[in-house]
Amino acid sequence: MILGRLNHVGVATPSIADSIALYRDVMGATAIGAPFDLPAQGVKVCFVDTPNTQIELIEPLGADSPIRAFLEKNPAGGQHHVCYEVPDIHVAKAWFEEKGLRVLGEPRIGAHGTPIFFVHPRDMGGVLTEIMATPKGAH
Amino acid sequence: MILGRLNHVGVATPSIADSIALYRDVMGATAIGAPFDLPAQGVKVCFVDTPNTQIELIEPLGADSPIRAFLEKNPAGGQHHVCYEVPDIHVAKAWFEEKGLRVLGEPRIGAHGTPIFFVHPRDMGGVLTEIMATPKGAH
Repeated sequence: MILGRLNHVGVATPSIADSIALYRDVMGATAIGAPFDLPAQGVKVCFVDTPNTQIELIEPLGADSPIRAFLEKNPAGGQHHVCYEVPDIHVAKAWFEEKGLRVLGEPRIGAHGTPIFFVHPRDMGGVLTEIMATPKGAH
Repeated sequence: MILGRLNHVGVATPSIADSIALYRDVMGATAIGAPFDLPAQGVKVCFVDTPNTQIELIEPLGADSPIRAFLEKNPAGGQHHVCYEVPDIHVAKAWFEEKGLRVLGEPRIGAHGTPIFFVHPRDMGGVLTEIMATPKGAH
């Protein structure tokens, strides 16, 4: 595997609306997508463009949202994961498993419409790592 | 202010040597800088290039390293901060202060040789945020 683009940094927030105000009014973001629900992942999502990558704002969606525990520990929100692009999600999954890392579940459709999976943070130096098939026509 | 490039994601690690092995052998990084000490910040630093940004590996340097507390809470390491580029560090500092955010100390020379400062994570949705004058000839 060759290290791919950092597609985004995932930032958990108790309120996407408040975070949008922060990124727009303080940080000066000029391209902020419309928030949308991703029920399969249990999150509401909003992408903020930087010139070279994106911040993915994620807010809990539903009672079983996987980021509720994170927000209980970090009520103000915080950095939740990083996401790298790969050309082929299945090749990548086999690669990580061959290296002995724990892949969390089967590839599923992620926020950019292409398959993703997560790698266990304990196998990635404490960094929850999302692997995403490069979005079509993205770059 | 206009949101600038994400210069890097800062990742704390108890061992830069172990993290280099992970990023090289598992993640497939092909451009990894030589680690160097940044005594003024109390960290040892190593930059890993991705195609569009960098991961900054940081390991404690000295007994008073500001990342020791982070590693006590997160012994395996983890996402520590994000760093955005700005054209002028003093204009940026005045901007954040005018917006009521807490700037942590005066601008000082950072890992890329240009002035940096940090903004308090409580004012940035829980994300410790480094602001860096764009490195010369960087892009």
